[in-house]
Amino acid sequence: MGPLAITFGLGILGVLFAFWLAQDVLRRDQGTPEMRQVSSAIYEGAMAFMRRQYGTIIVLALVGSVVVGIVIAAVEGNTGLGISTAISFLVGALCSALAGFIGMYISIQANIRTASAARRSLNEAVQASLRGGAVSGFLVVALSLLGVALMFVLFGGLADPARAPFQIVGFGFGASFVALFAQLGGGIYTKAADVGADLVGKVEANIPEDDPRNAAVVADLVGDNVGDCAGRGADLFESTAAESIGAMILGVAVYALARRANLPNAEYWIFFPLVVRALGIIASGAGLLIVRARDGENAMNALNRGYFLAAGLSAIFMVGAAQYMLGSIWFGLAGLVGVLTSIAFVYITQYYTAGTWRPVQEIARASLTGPATNIISGTAVGFESTFATAVSISIALVASYWMGVQGVAALGLPVAGHAAGVFGTAIATMGMLMTAAYILAMDTFGPITDNAGGIVEMSHQPEEVRRITDELDSVGNTTKALTKGYAIASAALAAFLLFSAYIDKVNEVLCKNAPIDRVTGLPDLVACVRPVAQGGLGIHLLEAVDLAKVNVFVAALLGAMLVYLFSSLAIRAVGRASQTIILEVRRQFAENPGIMAGTVRPDYGRCVDITTRAALREMVAPGLLAVAVPIAIGVALKHEAAAGMLMVGTIVGVLLATVLNNGGGAWDNAKKYIEAGYMKNPDGSVIGKGTPTHAASVVGDTVGDPFKDTAGPSLHVLVKLLSTITLVLAPLFIG
Amino acid sequence: MGPLAITFGLGILGVLFAFWLAQDVLRRDQGTPEMRQVSSAIYEGAMAFMRRQYGTIIVLALVGSVVVGIVIAAVEGNTGLGISTAISFLVGALCSALAGFIGMYISIQANIRTASAARRSLNEAVQASLRGGAVSGFLVVALSLLGVALMFVLFGGLADPARAPFQIVGFGFGASFVALFAQLGGGIYTKAADVGADLVGKVEANIPEDDPRNAAVVADLVGDNVGDCAGRGADLFESTAAESIGAMILGVAVYALARRANLPNAEYWIFFPLVVRALGIIASGAGLLIVRARDGENAMNALNRGYFLAAGLSAIFMVGAAQYMLGSIWFGLAGLVGVLTSIAFVYITQYYTAGTWRPVQEIARASLTGPATNIISGTAVGFESTFATAVSISIALVASYWMGVQGVAALGLPVAGHAAGVFGTAIATMGMLMTAAYILAMDTFGPITDNAGGIVEMSHQPEEVRRITDELDSVGNTTKALTKGYAIASAALAAFLLFSAYIDKVNEVLCKNAPIDRVTGLPDLVACVRPVAQGGLGIHLLEAVDLAKVNVFVAALLGAMLVYLFSSLAIRAVGRASQTIILEVRRQFAENPGIMAGTVRPDYGRCVDITTRAALREMVAPGLLAVAVPIAIGVALKHEAAAGMLMVGTIVGVLLATVLNNGGGAWDNAKKYIEAGYMKNPDGSVIGKGTPTHAASVVGDTVGDPFKDTAGPSLHVLVKLLSTITLVLAPLFIG
Repeated sequence: MGPLAITFGLGILGVLFAFWLAQDVLRRDQGTPEMRQVSSAIYEGAMAFMRRQYGTIIVLALVGSVVVGIVIAAVEGNTGLGISTAISFLVGALCSALAGFIGMYISIQANIRTASAARRSLNEAVQASLRGGAVSGFLVVALSLLGVALMFVLFGGLADPARAPFQIVGFGFGASFVALFAQLGGGIYTKAADVGADLVGKVEANIPEDDPRNAAVVADLVGDNVGDCAGRGADLFESTAAESIGAMILGVAVYALARRANLPNAEYWIFFPLVVRALGIIASGAGLLIVRARDGENAMNALNRGYFLAAGLSAIFMVGAAQYMLGSIWFGLAGLVGVLTSIAFVYITQYYTAGTWRPVQEIARASLTGPATNIISGTAVGFESTFATAVSISIALVASYWMGVQGVAALGLPVAGHAAGVFGTAIATMGMLMTAAYILAMDTFGPITDNAGGIVEMSHQPEEVRRITDELDSVGNTTKALTKGYAIASAALAAFLLFSAYIDKVNEVLCKNAPIDRVTGLPDLVACVRPVAQGGLGIHLLEAVDLAKVNVFVAALLGAMLVYLFSSLAIRAVGRASQTIILEVRRQFAENPGIMAGTVRPDYGRCVDITTRAALREMVAPGLLAVAVPIAIGVALKHEAAAGMLMVGTIVGVLLATVLNNGGGAWDNAKKYIEAGYMKNPDGSVIGKGTPTHAASVVGDTVGDPFKDTAGPSLHVLVKLLSTITLVLAPLFIG
Repeated sequence: MGPLAITFGLGILGVLFAFWLAQDVLRRDQGTPEMRQVSSAIYEGAMAFMRRQYGTIIVLALVGSVVVGIVIAAVEGNTGLGISTAISFLVGALCSALAGFIGMYISIQANIRTASAARRSLNEAVQASLRGGAVSGFLVVALSLLGVALMFVLFGGLADPARAPFQIVGFGFGASFVALFAQLGGGIYTKAADVGADLVGKVEANIPEDDPRNAAVVADLVGDNVGDCAGRGADLFESTAAESIGAMILGVAVYALARRANLPNAEYWIFFPLVVRALGIIASGAGLLIVRARDGENAMNALNRGYFLAAGLSAIFMVGAAQYMLGSIWFGLAGLVGVLTSIAFVYITQYYTAGTWRPVQEIARASLTGPATNIISGTAVGFESTFATAVSISIALVASYWMGVQGVAALGLPVAGHAAGVFGTAIATMGMLMTAAYILAMDTFGPITDNAGGIVEMSHQPEEVRRITDELDSVGNTTKALTKGYAIASAALAAFLLFSAYIDKVNEVLCKNAPIDRVTGLPDLVACVRPVAQGGLGIHLLEAVDLAKVNVFVAALLGAMLVYLFSSLAIRAVGRASQTIILEVRRQFAENPGIMAGTVRPDYGRCVDITTRAALREMVAPGLLAVAVPIAIGVALKHEAAAGMLMVGTIVGVLLATVLNNGGGAWDNAKKYIEAGYMKNPDGSVIGKGTPTHAASVVGDTVGDPFKDTAGPSLHVLVKLLSTITLVLAPLFIG
């Protein structure tokens, strides 16, 4: 069976598996009428948001695809390429939107089933929520795989596998484009609703969280879905798509040499990323199916067992596929590095954001002296967490690069060291992303259990039900944090291969059909030499992004600045949108005293609607900035500078996202640490809720909200957007 | 008169001017015995700190110079070079320490004179404080200039001007080394004392700021001097020294070609940076002497008049010197770009940190909904401020680069475009730094007026005296913020020329005496070709820092991470040190009830001593990190990677320092904005001190303190340390 058959077969199997999971969730019971009332309010709100948001996004994507197609056709003087880029852009955008939409639809059906199952057993609740989340996870990975594979076949990959990967970069750009707006819009929505509901409910009206009298409470519950499920789904859709395409482009260089050396199955170098992704679906599915929570056990352990099975199977599949398809154990080892990196990030994130370790406890203790020291301490923790992140990524890159070089040397292929090394890092990224479906299932588990808790709370269920949903909610907080660590690490690894793919693409454009060869007299130097218009010989040196050039340095500085400016706009958008909600809730309280008395139901729908419109309005400015600035820099400062912007923007984006995600998570859990009663006076009495220390920790938690749920995750998307924009628009930047 | 005669002449004049200013300050009257009592407590505390701190620093510098000398001697196999590097390192360290020490000494004499003068007139108080601050400013610039010039002559610059600049890079490293510890130690001291005094005084004991019953109050007053005067002085000493040396190294490339072309006075290309710096002293001195505050006028206007005279004269001197020494108007224009950039930064900093503009007002309004929204808003403002910073630096670099290329072309010199362009950016940096002495005078004006206010407060002077010192204190806050903006912008500009100097240095080491020439067949490519051990030809391509190489990329990622990790340690150090002080003040209150009653004077000295020891202890970890990590990266990943670390570390350092400085300054002034009564309810009533809004703004101010006074300024020093370390240890990194 050929690699493409495996790819399509397992990809379709992944989609079918997602539908089977959806059926499995939907056939479960939907609890009491009271529960259904709450759930249907969430459902209506979420669907209203999704319809409006994806309506906007699809219009933007249509415009985007036409513009991109025209630009490429004009710059390259090749109408066919313009059309193929526009089509792949649009298909990428639509696949991403489809995966997000269906995943969301099931996610908001799973919350009521989870709430209802919690009345019976922990295990049933875990299964309802995890499988509900897995629908999104498997659809994202399978649709991304099928979309890339389909585009590859459509644009002649069977006839000329070396050319097709360059034709389908538009798919990744389309996916990035949707992800940018899905994550930004969802991130702004979720935190605007959260902050707005808290400020007007807990602070002003002095009613507890998830109180049905708060008109913003449904918007808040909807928000968890649109941020974590739809947003992160689009984020990882983009990662897997861009990584597959980038790795195929890198495979082309090896393929060409393997063919010249008359090795059998040279095209396997190009198909390998697709096959590995397909095998990852199987590994993730197996992990998912074994999850069973024993009574009295922490649900996190059950999820971890599934994850370790998925990771273990991924490792075995990876080594086997590398051995069979590429013929050297070294490539399998490079893939293992990726699997290990994903495990490392699970632990790094836990260390920085879980109450069992030093960082969160340090923030909790700093709350003793008030909100200021809480904030200072959390900032220090966020900054510190870049260390483990950067070192892990560095080790993974250097090790897998070295293994790639060893692998090619072992095969005796005449491949330049750099191309082989970069291919090694690409395999590590594939290894890291093999468990993506499982990780996404754990992530979407988060909003489902959070919503289930809200439903239980609002429908006044007994204490023991609430205990189960509370535990699941807290596990969900951990899995949401883990996913962010995983997403940023995979973005960083993927970025390196996407840079390299960009440079290959630039070479492809610059060299056209000219031979790429060593420069006479310079043994280490490879260049292509081709006739230029003036009649002389144009010589283009390959693979250099020279930061010492002033335009490259300036572009790098501006790329780094873009990360901060974008974050500033995203953070500020939350503040503005939340003001809108506060005004609406105040209005409802004022105009209808029955709401506060509990005799009249507030107008939840209006709050959802207002939040939706505010979030969509606010996502426009940062979204356009993220698209326009890289293009402007590339056009003004040219292709080498665009690479500098891309690389340094990525480094800064990865680190700042780490700071924002981990700082935010640590603040959140420092508050929970205090609420759980772990903070004590010297005499042993608990410093808990209601104390100034707890109030200080609430300030930190509120500050962390837009950091970890809006700006941080949006930065994941931004760094990948930089890659895909430059990859697609490379011809425009070559002056 | 030759350029070196001008340099030495004006340098010595600068030192004499500083001593004349010192005399002028010291001869002024010292007020009432009560004032003298406070002042002498500050004096003793500051001197105790300085003795202990500089004692530690000088020991560290001695060890550093020996280690650097041995390493260079061993790696280069050249004992002479090792000794010259060690000597210049030590002289650089000593000059910096000397300038810091004398400046501090006068600064803490000027505070009492300013307090006393405030009893008579605003103008007298302005003159006492500005001239007191100018002692530090002129000593820093003049000693830096004389030190560099002396080293240049000592190491054979008269005989071989092309070789000597490479021999004296140790001077810059020594200056960086001292600056690192001076700024870190001073920054930790000042904020630990400030935060400690506030938490234990205002919050716990409920007594006002600067209350004599607070045992930490003198430590707090001492802190302003050691942070802003000694710390920033060492910072700009390092900037001017490193910039002079780097610019001379870049001048060597043009010098060699000018000589080959038989142009007259070819060595002027190397002397030009020294002459410009010397002329800057004159411009700054003239500006200083005209400062006269009219009655009823805002003192900031008086300082601004002086600054604009200094900047205007600098522009004229720059254009004249460039025309006379280098022979083209283009170089003068490049210098003008630098002067304009320094003015731009004065305005950018004011926009982001003064209450008259949108950012600070936005933070003040966000305080209405509590500390969390205050922090979120301040963070957004800090992030946003990177935009104007990065864009201004980018414009300055691109414009001056282009002018450098034009200038060389106008002269018909056969200089490679890159070398000419970089020399253009070097001239812009010189232009920017011409007013350094004046800027530093304004900066040290800050702690002097702050201390004068404390003395007036603690010695119970009448209201109208306090009004004058309050106004000066507020002007001082502005000038301190401006100086940070100026320091970070000049560091960013200087960094680009220091990268280029590093690359020239690497080329010098790699090429030894081999000819640097164009590679046959590649018109744009310059390389040196020399025999290598294996008997073949080693070919070294010049001027490439290729971020697409995995080791360069990883080094860049780690360099960026270092910025965050270092900031984390610096911020955390403040927290730990302040805990020590809180415990001590509490102990004094508990053991001696007479203190709170006001009948017994607390033991100020013990608090100063404890803070001193805590600050010195806490500066060790971040200090060693800042020195060890760049060396480890350079040794492990080699010279090209070291350049990547340096450049990306600099970009991230500049941006993060901007965020921390401007965010901190904006929080500070948002609090002052509310205290000044500008925040109003819809009905027009003032929301001032004592309201929850004010309390929220105090949280932001406290958070901003270690950001803007410890971590931010320490990052200025870190980025320059990266440059000087790599410049000196380049031979060690070449594998």
